Amino acid sequence: MTNTVPVLPSYVRDGWWTPADASTPGGTATDAPEAARAVVVHDASTGEPVARLSTDGLDMAAVLDHARDVGQKSLGDLTIHERAVLLKRMALELTAHKDELYEVSARTGATARDSAFDVDGGIGVLFTYSSKGRRELPNANLILDGPPEQLSKDGSFLGRHVYTRLSGVAVQINAFNFPVWGPLEKFAPAFLAGVPTVIKPATPTAYLTEAWVRVLVEAGLVPDGSLQLVSGPARDLLGHLRLGDSVAFTGSADTARRLRGSVAEGVRFTAEADSINASVLGPDGVPGSAEFDAYVRQLVTEMTVKAGQKCTAIRRAIVPEALVDDVVAAVGTRLAQKVTVGDPRAEGVTMGPLASLEQREELHRQVEKLIGAGGRVAVGPADFAAPPEVVRADGTVGAAPGGAFAAPLLLRFDDADAAALHDVEAFGPVASVVGYRDVGHAADLVVRGGGSLVTSVATSDPAAAAALFGRLCAANGRVLFLDRDDARTSTGHGSPVPHLVHGGPGRAGGGEELGGVRAVHHYMQRTAIQGSPRMLTELTGVWHTGAPAGGAGAVHPFRKSLAELRVGDQVVAGPREVTLEDIEHFAEFTGDTFYAHMDETAAAANPFFPGRVAHGYLLVSFAAGLFVDPDPGPVLANYGLENLRFRTPVSPGEAITVTLTAKQIIPRETDDHGEVRWDAVLRNQDYEVVATYDVLTLVAKEWPPPE
Amino acid sequence: MTNTVPVLPSYVRDGWWTPADASTPGGTATDAPEAARAVVVHDASTGEPVARLSTDGLDMAAVLDHARDVGQKSLGDLTIHERAVLLKRMALELTAHKDELYEVSARTGATARDSAFDVDGGIGVLFTYSSKGRRELPNANLILDGPPEQLSKDGSFLGRHVYTRLSGVAVQINAFNFPVWGPLEKFAPAFLAGVPTVIKPATPTAYLTEAWVRVLVEAGLVPDGSLQLVSGPARDLLGHLRLGDSVAFTGSADTARRLRGSVAEGVRFTAEADSINASVLGPDGVPGSAEFDAYVRQLVTEMTVKAGQKCTAIRRAIVPEALVDDVVAAVGTRLAQKVTVGDPRAEGVTMGPLASLEQREELHRQVEKLIGAGGRVAVGPADFAAPPEVVRADGTVGAAPGGAFAAPLLLRFDDADAAALHDVEAFGPVASVVGYRDVGHAADLVVRGGGSLVTSVATSDPAAAAALFGRLCAANGRVLFLDRDDARTSTGHGSPVPHLVHGGPGRAGGGEELGGVRAVHHYMQRTAIQGSPRMLTELTGVWHTGAPAGGAGAVHPFRKSLAELRVGDQVVAGPREVTLEDIEHFAEFTGDTFYAHMDETAAAANPFFPGRVAHGYLLVSFAAGLFVDPDPGPVLANYGLENLRFRTPVSPGEAITVTLTAKQIIPRETDDHGEVRWDAVLRNQDYEVVATYDVLTLVAKEWPPPE
Repeated sequence: MTNTVPVLPSYVRDGWWTPADASTPGGTATDAPEAARAVVVHDASTGEPVARLSTDGLDMAAVLDHARDVGQKSLGDLTIHERAVLLKRMALELTAHKDELYEVSARTGATARDSAFDVDGGIGVLFTYSSKGRRELPNANLILDGPPEQLSKDGSFLGRHVYTRLSGVAVQINAFNFPVWGPLEKFAPAFLAGVPTVIKPATPTAYLTEAWVRVLVEAGLVPDGSLQLVSGPARDLLGHLRLGDSVAFTGSADTARRLRGSVAEGVRFTAEADSINASVLGPDGVPGSAEFDAYVRQLVTEMTVKAGQKCTAIRRAIVPEALVDDVVAAVGTRLAQKVTVGDPRAEGVTMGPLASLEQREELHRQVEKLIGAGGRVAVGPADFAAPPEVVRADGTVGAAPGGAFAAPLLLRFDDADAAALHDVEAFGPVASVVGYRDVGHAADLVVRGGGSLVTSVATSDPAAAAALFGRLCAANGRVLFLDRDDARTSTGHGSPVPHLVHGGPGRAGGGEELGGVRAVHHYMQRTAIQGSPRMLTELTGVWHTGAPAGGAGAVHPFRKSLAELRVGDQVVAGPREVTLEDIEHFAEFTGDTFYAHMDETAAAANPFFPGRVAHGYLLVSFAAGLFVDPDPGPVLANYGLENLRFRTPVSPGEAITVTLTAKQIIPRETDDHGEVRWDAVLRNQDYEVVATYDVLTLVAKEWPPPE
Repeated sequence: MTNTVPVLPSYVRDGWWTPADASTPGGTATDAPEAARAVVVHDASTGEPVARLSTDGLDMAAVLDHARDVGQKSLGDLTIHERAVLLKRMALELTAHKDELYEVSARTGATARDSAFDVDGGIGVLFTYSSKGRRELPNANLILDGPPEQLSKDGSFLGRHVYTRLSGVAVQINAFNFPVWGPLEKFAPAFLAGVPTVIKPATPTAYLTEAWVRVLVEAGLVPDGSLQLVSGPARDLLGHLRLGDSVAFTGSADTARRLRGSVAEGVRFTAEADSINASVLGPDGVPGSAEFDAYVRQLVTEMTVKAGQKCTAIRRAIVPEALVDDVVAAVGTRLAQKVTVGDPRAEGVTMGPLASLEQREELHRQVEKLIGAGGRVAVGPADFAAPPEVVRADGTVGAAPGGAFAAPLLLRFDDADAAALHDVEAFGPVASVVGYRDVGHAADLVVRGGGSLVTSVATSDPAAAAALFGRLCAANGRVLFLDRDDARTSTGHGSPVPHLVHGGPGRAGGGEELGGVRAVHHYMQRTAIQGSPRMLTELTGVWHTGAPAGGAGAVHPFRKSLAELRVGDQVVAGPREVTLEDIEHFAEFTGDTFYAHMDETAAAANPFFPGRVAHGYLLVSFAAGLFVDPDPGPVLANYGLENLRFRTPVSPGEAITVTLTAKQIIPRETDDHGEVRWDAVLRNQDYEVVATYDVLTLVAKEWPPPE
């Protein structure tokens, strides 16, 4: 039967590829070695074969070279914002094909809720990176990191940090449990950084990855070489990597260790590995409290979403000793009421099978270890390895021999020090509950996990939260606090969000993914650059104090559209004397009668003022009056101000001058205007700096605007 | 003779330690195995023995446990600012002992100029971290990373990133060339982060590291367990490391690779390795130009400072093909005029010996490789391995058989593709010059180094600079641009500065050190925390929008000193109507007659305004008038404002209300006041947000101030 199963295509070098044997009748290992090498993957609920996977004959070196040559080129021709716009179009395209993707996703054992995590979650990552890329990053190919550092007293030698993209290819080695979200959460930041990606999905669910890649390819949204898909064994792929390339791995700690050691020096390697995550119920989380309910609800969710096949799922429920019985009882009740195991295509099913029979076998091996170490079945079938009765696709209930079903299982440990409790990951709908004596003990137990992706804490008590927090942060990539305020709005223990870092120290792999633009940096090199203000301005496109300024003659820079404006264009305006009458008038007008402005004796007693001084906001307002250009023009609005510092007070009778210089220009891709950041320096009559700040404006791309 | 040489003490577990055999007469390998294990180190110029090194019998596990227990505790009892103040006291103490340190430094072969790099450079790192720690980090033990992320629509569930210190010990494995700067540049950020350090200096110059550690210990400036020194072989030190610990290694790429593989999973490992750094002379850098002179001057400096024993030194001089002869001639002239090799204790000596005879042997081996690969001696003795005539300590000139002297050597390669040119590091006063065809070729050659700590470029031409920049950033940790503007003020190709990242990709080790507070983060775990605004406020000490606010009754928060003020203390003031008269009056008073405020028709044509609107600065000024407390009090000054965004325009007749909430309180260690950041929100009569910003104030610690 399996011989007729189609081979899953790879998408490489901008085309679809299948091995040479794909159309030939296959056979067994003895009569057709080529075909035998193809792995067959099956529907998780029914066991029906879905596809064969093979990369026999695929030239991995050529795949990588294509990314490095064509992919780097096509992405380098775009700016960060242009790539961000493409990410949004990809998200919209996948949204339009969501029904198809859900259908394919169901074959992996995913319920509609599971697919919401995987498919919608993956689309959400694209939307978030598109939005963050445009709001938080420049429309360029270079990201500044931190302010300039003045390295010489006279300001002629500066230092600054910049991020520029890595020169190679980003290879993903993915886990089977999130065939949509997993590759997309790695792809989005790499794409935004301008680095081409090669996806190696996990075998059991590779056909779902192929499905969404196909949607994007067919929509023409994949720039040449920017995305390739290897549907099958990676073979010698990693052996061809070199400086400038990177690997993002998700899977077991053992495999991570092996792969990390196998790549060439200079290849970045990041890993998210299995993690024995914990969830702590605070001492105040007694039955009847909102925190107890939230804790139990979340624990059952984490046991059953994706049938517990999440690297972020709760494996250890760490609860006050006196509350173990209550938690066990509540979990049992909720599982019985809320969870129906079966084929996700059947009505009413809330938990599907594991991804494959192999996964179930592996799960059973781990559960045996836990039981051998003292775990007792508190909720679930005592004979955990027996295939459960399930709802089949046709709605009937009974055994489903080809399906990889497993019943939810809550184990209970009396011995909190059992090593297996903190070491063994049963990757399925399985958690263990254990009691703690006090919050210090609870923290000890969490840390025994050796570094985790996430720990959650359900408590409303700030003292208990703080005591745990101080210990948990160093051992976790993410810590979630559940209380009555956020119980309903929490995104959940097991859900990485694209805004926040996903990853954890130690056993969790030591890597970081997501975290908004932080992940974009992972695909870039941070370089310190040193030079004169002129050269740093030329290289970064951002004006640096001390660089030439002035612009083209007599035209006020506010009269220039983005098409005409250049960094360094400058207006110097003033002087304007600030009189005592001005100060008193401003005080009366605004109501700001602070003594430093109004009372000579009291002001002089203040450690920072020589006597009465002008209001800071008066100075900034006068400065605006000096540099503003009153008539309609390309500057549409002042939308903000940043980094204002008052450096020297201004006494009555002193005069201020303002220097305003175009510092950074960020055209917006999808608007007819852009952002211009102006460097503002106020000085007094002695050229002392009175105040410095950045003025933020919106400026039209063309002026007058095109009809 | 060596038997009478004292054993160099280690400083462990808050005391000085020497091996049990230290006071016994030693012997040869055959008659006294214990003593034989002690390594003898020698004066670099004279060959006289200086010290014996042995760690026989030192319990490395106990050293680490002491750091983890006592060191973590004593550092955790301090805040970041308190530790920063200690760093400054250390810097002052070392400055007071500079003469002694220079004297010891001379024994390593260092001239006064070399010691300025090492000793003063190390002290400078302490000063910089003390200053940056207090200016750029909070006075707390938790560092926020980025703004809060709103994760639920109603704002009841937030995310944020925090850095907290690692739970273990920071082990340094240092190189021999910077026995002061090397350990201090790693120690300062670890100390600031609150992580105890164990220093393992390189054998040949360990006595200089011991000297400065002793100064700090004797001054009582080392908190218990925060700093330990292992003077001798590390033996099983790294084998005892675990999650929470870290290793910062400086040395060869081979050793880095070996050590990285030897530490347990979860131990952070960062390396700075030998790097074949390049310096490019731009096409415009013709003889007679300021850039040519700066280029040659820098190249000679890099060849001779520390006798070229710097991981950042220039190994490859990449110059236009037509200028190779000119560069060779100019380097030869300058070396002859400026460089005198000899014992650094002799008058007029500008370049000392290598650190040891073993180093010289190694240097000769590498030079042989370079010559074998086509390098010809362009400047320097043809018989490079012959001991040079040098100035001896007594001022006489001649051979110095016990000294590790080597003459400066410039090699010339005709074949730019010779692999050894880009692969072999001759760690001494040796550089190779090679010609390039065009800037693309120059970039190719730089990148052939496989990742470098630093590349410098001497050019005044922005186009050439930009073309190189685009290629060099991804392959370098630092890129320095020399031109006529900064030639005199540049800190130099070979000098890492504490403000900027030191490290590089690929062959350079892939690590990052220094870079201001970036290095502090290396000793901390970044954790995403999620929770309600109330809980995030409790845990971070920083008020989050949505958390309880109000404070203690009727007292205006501006009447509270730091001793009384709490985050969340709040004042709500207003409403105040903004009339058309106000707007016109403000326009006339300030001169800001922008049409959006003055002309209804023109304003309405603007895409962002409904018609005439109030000036943003008018709103901010009115807000200050609403919330200010006029009489002298603990709030001393408003020193700035940040993140101002105007969100909804205010039309004439609308009314604004301001809510000001104490968001973050940062007491200053060495002042009687601190910084308070206030969250300001302006709303209109419909509760729409008009503007948001942070007001920055200086507030007295006590009020009235103590007499």
